[in-house]
Amino acid sequence: MTAPRFQFSIHATDGKARTGTIRMRRGEIRTPAFMPVGTAATVKAMKPQGVRATGADILLGNTYHLMLRPGAERVARLGGLHTFMNWDRPILTDSGGYQVMSLSDLRKITEEGVTFASHIDGSRHLLTPERSMEIQRLLGSDIVMAFDECPRADAPREAIEKSMRMSMRWAARSRAGFDSGEGHAENSALFGIQQGALDEALRRESADALRDIGFDGYAIGGLAVGEGQEAMFATLDFAPDMLPVDRPRYLMGVGKPDDLVGAVERGIDMFDCVLPSRSGRNGQAFTWHGPVNLRNARHAEDTAPLDEQCPCDACRHYGRAYLHHLIKAGEILGAMLLTEHNLTFYQQLMATMREAIGAGTFTAFAARFRSDYLRTG
Amino acid sequence: MTAPRFQFSIHATDGKARTGTIRMRRGEIRTPAFMPVGTAATVKAMKPQGVRATGADILLGNTYHLMLRPGAERVARLGGLHTFMNWDRPILTDSGGYQVMSLSDLRKITEEGVTFASHIDGSRHLLTPERSMEIQRLLGSDIVMAFDECPRADAPREAIEKSMRMSMRWAARSRAGFDSGEGHAENSALFGIQQGALDEALRRESADALRDIGFDGYAIGGLAVGEGQEAMFATLDFAPDMLPVDRPRYLMGVGKPDDLVGAVERGIDMFDCVLPSRSGRNGQAFTWHGPVNLRNARHAEDTAPLDEQCPCDACRHYGRAYLHHLIKAGEILGAMLLTEHNLTFYQQLMATMREAIGAGTFTAFAARFRSDYLRTG
Repeated sequence: MTAPRFQFSIHATDGKARTGTIRMRRGEIRTPAFMPVGTAATVKAMKPQGVRATGADILLGNTYHLMLRPGAERVARLGGLHTFMNWDRPILTDSGGYQVMSLSDLRKITEEGVTFASHIDGSRHLLTPERSMEIQRLLGSDIVMAFDECPRADAPREAIEKSMRMSMRWAARSRAGFDSGEGHAENSALFGIQQGALDEALRRESADALRDIGFDGYAIGGLAVGEGQEAMFATLDFAPDMLPVDRPRYLMGVGKPDDLVGAVERGIDMFDCVLPSRSGRNGQAFTWHGPVNLRNARHAEDTAPLDEQCPCDACRHYGRAYLHHLIKAGEILGAMLLTEHNLTFYQQLMATMREAIGAGTFTAFAARFRSDYLRTG
Repeated sequence: MTAPRFQFSIHATDGKARTGTIRMRRGEIRTPAFMPVGTAATVKAMKPQGVRATGADILLGNTYHLMLRPGAERVARLGGLHTFMNWDRPILTDSGGYQVMSLSDLRKITEEGVTFASHIDGSRHLLTPERSMEIQRLLGSDIVMAFDECPRADAPREAIEKSMRMSMRWAARSRAGFDSGEGHAENSALFGIQQGALDEALRRESADALRDIGFDGYAIGGLAVGEGQEAMFATLDFAPDMLPVDRPRYLMGVGKPDDLVGAVERGIDMFDCVLPSRSGRNGQAFTWHGPVNLRNARHAEDTAPLDEQCPCDACRHYGRAYLHHLIKAGEILGAMLLTEHNLTFYQQLMATMREAIGAGTFTAFAARFRSDYLRTG
């Protein structure tokens, strides 16, 4: 029996929350899923076997970074991203659209695509829906994201409407480019991205356009861009319901642990975020009792572990005083241990949510989580 | 049967080269031994279990760094350096003398000791033989180094003579301080340090002074400070022979792979050096065919491993192109993988030398090594 190209099964629901499995050639993805971010073909400060040991089923790679360095054609010549970085399970690649807007210089957006200058060496590049599909094919991506534009959440409604409609035309071009890429449609999956910021009518129009084109999964883009959790949750109260119920729903670039719980509660199946790895490098650790800043002098003589229950190396073998010392001294091992801890915490959070949904106890779990994590109880 | 405090057995000799075992409470040290440097209570970019997996039997910790941050009294309150950093095998600590001279500001040397300002926060400290012994006891060191002064190799002979004689008086004070430290002499070993730069008569005088005091082992200090390999080897042609034949001889701060082979050939049993870890972070890898600079563009599309035979993760799972990419992108994983590779290479080199000495084939090994490594063959 060969593994399917892409198959999503929902095992249980609890309110709007769902738990299931995506089956793909390179492995299964348990949902709700958190995807660690491997920007430049590495999850920073982790070996891939360490990332897998935290419980990750899938990684995210950034098209923008990889097209600039080492370059998509080079990665293809070297055997693809999986071989290059020694990760044999699924990889989702973003389309490059979001990071062209946030990281590059001298952007110019036209109907054709985006012209920009590399933040690394200033070289000029054109990214179009067709080129984004080609790059993601060259990388060997398992889940390919449609090329879109992500406007600022506080842009005027007309700008958001205009941008969303162009993104929907780009979504159709992405679909065509993906389908015509050699071997691509047989081996990989393509996700569309809903836009429309916080506006219900625009989100509806975007969802309808994507559904007409048809995708393996549907992402919600244009959130977590500064609008705040309340506005994000208000949008998630309606946006996921507009997407096909039998397809995975992926909330891009989110987020804090309490964001994840609130989004799963509203029907989201997949997440990615740099927060656990970036915070770890900066000395912030996530725990069931909220974030802990290990730079703080109160940890300097504390021999207690970060989290008694956590199975990661940082918690099993070291006290808070040692982690404090490493972070204060700028030691690489501090980044290594706290990244591992944070990714472990995120995967434990996802596993706990999957279990609670399966057991029909998600509402109670979410209430208890918020009480402990936000210390509101 | 309890493990001995300190016991050195020589299993075989081949010319002046020796192989043996040091037995201590916390474990055995196979000699010739290379000790990775764990400056600030961490071998940079490595977990301790990873360091052990390379084959290391013992680590070196730096008294100067640890006394300033996190502080010796604090480490003692936290259970000692072994517990703090999760390494349960032997640790050798230097005396702080060398790094006070190379790293601190505003040094003032008197017969009493050295007054200096911390390079971290400018705070003023006094380091004496007695305080150095106390700090190393508080850290929980297994092999304690006598406090010495290390002058520049190009200093005038009178300065070197004067400095060496003070270091010998400090050696006697170190011995007394060590012996009176509570529980110290029962659990740990104390090494004296021969000084005298490149001068045979001064080296002889220093060795005689140390032998009169009596130590568990004898280090050769004041080399690898800019004199060059030829001068170092010329000194090693006589200096080790002046030290007791039945005690370990430790060449401090050395060195490059070809330095180690030449020094073992001249009767050295122990080494420490930051070179494999520091070079790894900078993109330089050591191999049996010489050093490889992974920053070089010629590796950009090379899918071959760094070293076909090497058992480390970097060589088993990745091509040179990936390591090149990580180093170019400044990724932490590049530092992690190349540090692991270099420490693995160093331990393999030591293991190969131990085997060759045991088999009586060290001369042939050394010739073949130099031919391959220095590409002189």
